[in-house]
Amino acid sequence: MAYTNDDQLAINTIRTLAVDAIAKAKSGHPGAPLGMAPVAHVLFSRFLKFNPKNPQWLNRDRFVLSNGHGCMLLYGMLHLAGYAVSIEDIKRFRQLDSLTPGHPEANHTPGVEVTTGPLGQGIASAVGLAMAEAHSAAVFNKDGFPVFSNYTYCFVGDGCLMEGVASEASSLAGHLQLGNLVVVWDDNHVCIDGDTNNAFREDVLKRYEAYGWHTQTVLHGDTDLDGIEAALRAAQQVTDKPSIIAVKTTIGFGSKQQGTHTVHGSPLQADDIAQLKAKFGFDPNESFAVPQQAYDLYKTVAAKGAQAEQDWTALFNKYAARYGTEAAEIRRRVAKELPTGWEKCLPTYTPSSPAIASRKMSENVLVAVADVLPELMGGSADLTTPNLTRWRNAIDYQPPAAGLGGSYAGRYVRYGVREHAMGAIMNGLGAYGTILPYAGTFLNFVSYAAPAVRLSALSRVRLIWVATHDSIGQGEDGATHQPIETLAHFRALPNCMVWRPADGNETSAAYAAAFTAKETPSIIALTRQDLPPLSGSSIAQASRGGYVLSEPEGGKADLVLVSTGSEVSLCVEASACLSQTHGLRTRIVSLPCFDVFDRQPLDYKLSVLPDGIPSLSVEVLATNGWERYTHEQFGLDRFGASAPYKDLYKKFDFTAEGVARRAMATVDFWKKMPCVVSPVNRAFQHSNSI
Amino acid sequence: MAYTNDDQLAINTIRTLAVDAIAKAKSGHPGAPLGMAPVAHVLFSRFLKFNPKNPQWLNRDRFVLSNGHGCMLLYGMLHLAGYAVSIEDIKRFRQLDSLTPGHPEANHTPGVEVTTGPLGQGIASAVGLAMAEAHSAAVFNKDGFPVFSNYTYCFVGDGCLMEGVASEASSLAGHLQLGNLVVVWDDNHVCIDGDTNNAFREDVLKRYEAYGWHTQTVLHGDTDLDGIEAALRAAQQVTDKPSIIAVKTTIGFGSKQQGTHTVHGSPLQADDIAQLKAKFGFDPNESFAVPQQAYDLYKTVAAKGAQAEQDWTALFNKYAARYGTEAAEIRRRVAKELPTGWEKCLPTYTPSSPAIASRKMSENVLVAVADVLPELMGGSADLTTPNLTRWRNAIDYQPPAAGLGGSYAGRYVRYGVREHAMGAIMNGLGAYGTILPYAGTFLNFVSYAAPAVRLSALSRVRLIWVATHDSIGQGEDGATHQPIETLAHFRALPNCMVWRPADGNETSAAYAAAFTAKETPSIIALTRQDLPPLSGSSIAQASRGGYVLSEPEGGKADLVLVSTGSEVSLCVEASACLSQTHGLRTRIVSLPCFDVFDRQPLDYKLSVLPDGIPSLSVEVLATNGWERYTHEQFGLDRFGASAPYKDLYKKFDFTAEGVARRAMATVDFWKKMPCVVSPVNRAFQHSNSI
Repeated sequence: MAYTNDDQLAINTIRTLAVDAIAKAKSGHPGAPLGMAPVAHVLFSRFLKFNPKNPQWLNRDRFVLSNGHGCMLLYGMLHLAGYAVSIEDIKRFRQLDSLTPGHPEANHTPGVEVTTGPLGQGIASAVGLAMAEAHSAAVFNKDGFPVFSNYTYCFVGDGCLMEGVASEASSLAGHLQLGNLVVVWDDNHVCIDGDTNNAFREDVLKRYEAYGWHTQTVLHGDTDLDGIEAALRAAQQVTDKPSIIAVKTTIGFGSKQQGTHTVHGSPLQADDIAQLKAKFGFDPNESFAVPQQAYDLYKTVAAKGAQAEQDWTALFNKYAARYGTEAAEIRRRVAKELPTGWEKCLPTYTPSSPAIASRKMSENVLVAVADVLPELMGGSADLTTPNLTRWRNAIDYQPPAAGLGGSYAGRYVRYGVREHAMGAIMNGLGAYGTILPYAGTFLNFVSYAAPAVRLSALSRVRLIWVATHDSIGQGEDGATHQPIETLAHFRALPNCMVWRPADGNETSAAYAAAFTAKETPSIIALTRQDLPPLSGSSIAQASRGGYVLSEPEGGKADLVLVSTGSEVSLCVEASACLSQTHGLRTRIVSLPCFDVFDRQPLDYKLSVLPDGIPSLSVEVLATNGWERYTHEQFGLDRFGASAPYKDLYKKFDFTAEGVARRAMATVDFWKKMPCVVSPVNRAFQHSNSI
Repeated sequence: MAYTNDDQLAINTIRTLAVDAIAKAKSGHPGAPLGMAPVAHVLFSRFLKFNPKNPQWLNRDRFVLSNGHGCMLLYGMLHLAGYAVSIEDIKRFRQLDSLTPGHPEANHTPGVEVTTGPLGQGIASAVGLAMAEAHSAAVFNKDGFPVFSNYTYCFVGDGCLMEGVASEASSLAGHLQLGNLVVVWDDNHVCIDGDTNNAFREDVLKRYEAYGWHTQTVLHGDTDLDGIEAALRAAQQVTDKPSIIAVKTTIGFGSKQQGTHTVHGSPLQADDIAQLKAKFGFDPNESFAVPQQAYDLYKTVAAKGAQAEQDWTALFNKYAARYGTEAAEIRRRVAKELPTGWEKCLPTYTPSSPAIASRKMSENVLVAVADVLPELMGGSADLTTPNLTRWRNAIDYQPPAAGLGGSYAGRYVRYGVREHAMGAIMNGLGAYGTILPYAGTFLNFVSYAAPAVRLSALSRVRLIWVATHDSIGQGEDGATHQPIETLAHFRALPNCMVWRPADGNETSAAYAAAFTAKETPSIIALTRQDLPPLSGSSIAQASRGGYVLSEPEGGKADLVLVSTGSEVSLCVEASACLSQTHGLRTRIVSLPCFDVFDRQPLDYKLSVLPDGIPSLSVEVLATNGWERYTHEQFGLDRFGASAPYKDLYKKFDFTAEGVARRAMATVDFWKKMPCVVSPVNRAFQHSNSI
C-alpha cells in the first residue's frame, strides 16, 4: 500500500507534538522523536499488533523504546494510536503526577511495556520479552492454535549499543536464535558529547552478525517509508535469527540544529519551532495540533487492532474449549495466582534435620515446587552447580534448531557469564505475563546487575535472585568474591525484598514471600557453608520478616542478640556461652528480611525488639543500616580474605566468644545509661512505599 | 630461538605446581593453569619485560590475568620468574594471610598489577593500563628518550568475553587504536556450566574485528610454542590496533578430565594427579617439585629483565639530566605527591557568593587545578555538558591518526556511554602510576560500574567519580534517573569516600580529600540545582567529614539537625522557622562524608553530635545508615518522580515546614524519654579498616 500525504502528516504530527510538549515542559529530548518519527509511524501503522483499548491483550506485539529519553516519541504514538494518553496528558509531559514522566515507566502509562531510560536496559528486557513469547508458544500453542505469536520490537539509540548490558543480551539473543525480535537502531551518528566518532567507531552491524543476528540498513530513514517497511517485513520473515535494522536518520530532523548534538536533549528555541512547524505544514502559532487526518489514520489502525484482538479471543475461546487445562493455566499465570495448595510443597525442617548449606535448602525448594509452579523459569550466570539452581531433569531453554538438547519449552536458561543481561532479561520475562523468573549468581555479583535490579523494583516485577556464597563463608575465593556492602545496598532499594534465611524453614519462608509478592522482586542470600537447623524457627514466624527465635530460661532477657543467616546459629552458641560463663540471659531474634519486618505493626516490632533491653546485631557483612534495629553492631566493615571459611570466621572474631565479648560490652555500656529506648521506637515512622 | 626440553619442563612445572597447590588447598581452578601454561611460558620467557627484583619498575610490561580464578598460573609464573613469591607461599595457596589468595590482589602480591577475578574487570583495567602508557609516552617521551614504551598483556577466558564490561572496554580500545595492548584469549570452549556452545556461540574474533582490533588464531595452543611466539610477535608489530589472539587450548590439559568443565574449578583427584605427573615426566610421589632447569631458564630471563631495567635507568638518568623538569614530574607523580602549594588553587566561597549548583562548584575546582595537577586525566560517560567535567581548552585523549583533533597527550577521555568500563579503566589508569583519574556520570549511573568501584576500593586505587544529578533535585528526568539507594550502597563499601558537599567550600574540601587520599577512591555527589553558599562552612571544617555549621543563639540547642548536600540549606531555613514559630533552638551539623567523620576521635564526634540532645537527619535519599548518627531520620525511602525539582521537593514534603514538623515530632518524642544517648556514643566502635 502506497504511503500518502496522511502518512506524512501523521509523522509530522508526532514530531510537532514532541517539540511542543518538550517546549512546554522546558525539558526533554527532541532529537530522537524528530528523527525516528518515520520509522515509528511505519511500525505502528503497518506492523505493530495492538488494541489501544486493551493494552493488556496477551498476544499483543510488544514495543520497547530502549532509548527511553526519546519518550515523547512513544507518548505521541500512544496518543495518536488511541491509548488512554490524552492530549492533556501530553501537555503535562514531565509534570508532577502526570501519565507522561521523563522516561517511560511500566505499570504507570498504558502501552508502556517495560521501564526504560537507563541505557541498554530496554533492549535487554526486549530480549526477555521475546524469550517469553517463544517459551509461551512452545508450551501452550497447539496445532491450529497459535495462541502466542507476537513479535517484540525495540528501538535503540547509539547509547544503548555502547552499554555492556546490551552487548550481553544481544549475544545471548543471537545464541537463542530469537526470530521474533526486531531491533531498530536509530543510526544518527550523534550522542550527547557530539559525533559518535569521538568514542564509538566500531562496525555495529558486523558485531551483530558476529552475534548471529540478521542485519539490514535503511539508508534514508528520514524519508524512505517504503524502505523502512521493506526492512521491517524482511526482518519479520527471518525466523531463526533476531534482526537489527540500522535506520540512518538525522537527529532533530526539521530543526535548524538538525544533525548536531545540541538538539539531543534540550527544548528547541521558539524561532526554531516556528520554522519547523512551517516546514512541516503546521501553523507556527498553534501548539499541540493534531490534524484530523492523523487521528483518522490511526482510528483505522486501532480498529484493525481491535479486530485482531477479537479474532484472537475467538481463537482462545476455541482453544479453551478444547484445551481447558492449558487455558486455565494461562489465565492463572497472567493473574499471578499460584495453584491452590501450592504451599504444601514447601519443605519444612525440625531441629533434628541435618546441617546443610542454605543454597541446598534453596535447591530443596526449587525441586519441590518445580512441577507445581510451571511458570517458574530459572537459570544461572554460568554458576549452575555452585548456585544449585537447576532441578534434576530440568530441560534447558535452547533454540530447538541448535541441537543442544533443549527447546523453547525448556525452563532452564543458560545465561552465560552475563549477570547484568540476566537481570534485565528477567525484567522482560516477568513483564510478559506468563513467567515467574528466577536466576542464580554469587551474591557479590548481583552487583553487576544493580541497574537492572533497580528497574525490577521500580517497575514492580516479581522475580527472584538466588544469591549464593553470601559472605566470607564463601571461603577460599577471597575478598574479590565475598560480599560486604551488597545487602546494605539492596536493603536501601525501595520495593526490593532482601532475604537472608538462617535455616531451612526460613528459606522456605523467603521463597513463599517471593512467589506471592506480585509486585516486588526478591534477593535471597544463601550460604555455601552448612548451617544447623534452628530450634524455634517456622515458615509462619519467618514470614513476618523478624521474630523471637528463643527466649532465655528463668526471667527477662538482659540482652537481645539480633542476627540473620549463618550468624543466627552463632548467636545461639554465644547465648549458651553467655549464660554459662556470665550468667547472662539473652533473647535471640532472627531478622531474615528487614523490608518485611519494617512493614509489621509497631507493637509487633516492639514485642520483638522491646524498650528496656539493649540489643546487639551480629552479621558478617557491613554494619550500615543495622542501627535501625539494634543498639550495637558486630559486623564486617572491611573486605574479607582468602582462606577456609572457619579460619576467616576466627580471624574476624566471629566466634561464640567474639560475640559474647561484644555482648558483655553492650550490656555493660547500657547498664550505665538511664534508659534504653528500642531503636524501632521512633518519633515518626519512615514511609516505605514505592 | 628453538624451544628445548627445558621449555617444556618449565611449562610442565607450572602445571604441576598449580595442581599441587590446588590439591593442598583443596580448592582452586586447575583448568586454566593446565591449559594456558604454554602461552604463559612463551610470554614470560620471551616477551614480557620485567625485573622480578623490582616489581615497581616504571617501564615494565604489565601483565593482567583477567581470568583471575586461574591465579595459580600467575603465582607459579611469579615464583619461577623470581618474584618474592616463595615455594612456601605457593604451598599456602588460599590460606589465611598468605601472599597467594584465591584471586590475584594488587597491592598484596608482588607482580600482581590489578585485582582480578570478578570477570571482565581485568581486560577493562588492561585497557586502562595501555591507555596510561600511551598517554605517558605522549607526554614525557622525547626524541631518543622512549622513557615509556611498555606493552600491556592480558589473558582472558570465555567468561571475561561474555561480560558487558569487557565489551565496552574492548570497543573503546579499538576506537583508541591501542597498539600497545595484546590480549590472549584462552579459547578452550568450556565454561563452568559446560560447553560454551550452551550459551556463547558468537564469532568472537569477528566481533573484535568489528571493534577495530587485529585478530589471530593459534590452532594448537597446547603444544605449538612457535605458533604462539609468532602470533605474539605479530601482535607486537601492529602499532595502530589492539590485538587479540585466540589460542585454542584444552582446559585441564594433562588431566584425565581434560576438555571438560569438571576440571575448571575443583582440585584433581589423587590418581589423576599421579597420572598427570607421570605423563609430564614428574615423580608422582613428589609434590611442589621444581626442576633446577626450570629455575635456571628463568634465572636467565630474570637477568635479562634486570639488565633491561638497568638500561632503562641509565636512559632515564640521561633524560633527567636533560629534561629535569619532566623527570622530577614523573617522580612526583609516581610517589603520588602533589606539587607544593597546590591547595592554594582551591576555590573558596563566602556567604555572599552567588548560588550555583554543586556540579558547577566541582567544575570550578577542576578548572582551577587543571594546570596545577597535570596528572589529572578526566572524562565522562557521554555526559560532559551535564557533568561539567571538562575544562575549557582541554585536549581530548584520542588516537592521533584518527583525525579527531585530540592526541594521546590529551587529558580528556571520551568514554562513550560505558560507565562500567569507565570505572574499570580508571582502575588501570590509576594503577599505572602516572595518572590521577576522574570521570563523570549521573550519580544514579555509578551503579552501572558498581563492580569496578568495589575493585577500586579493594585495590586501593586513588580515583574520583564526579557524580552529578544526585537526587530528586535532578527533576524532570524522573524516577529512572534519581538515586535513592546509591549513597547507602557506596557508604557501606569499605575504603570508599562518599562526599555530598553542601556548598562551594565543602566541594573544595571533597576534592582536596580525594586528591590527597593515596589509597582510596572517592565519589563526589553533586547537584544539578543551585545551592546557596553557607554561613559557617570552610574547607578545614568540612575536611573532618562532619562539623557544626551553626549554633543557635541564646543557649543550648534543643535539637540537632544533621544533613548533607542540598538539604543543608533547607535545614538552615527550617531552623529559622523553628526558632521563629516554635521558639526552638537548633544546631545544624553538616556531614558531607560519613567515612571521614567515622575516623575522627570519639570526643570530636561527641562534640558534634552530643549526648542529651535529640537529632534529626535530613537527606532526600534512602534513610538506611543514618541511624548511626541521628535519632530520627527524614529521607526518601521510595522512588522519585518526574517534575520540576521544586515541585518534587514539595511533593515529598522536603520544605522548611516539612522539616520543622519532623523536628517538632523529634523533640516531643525525646522529651518523654528519661535519657538521650548520642548515636555515636557506643559500647564499642566498628572497625573500618580495609
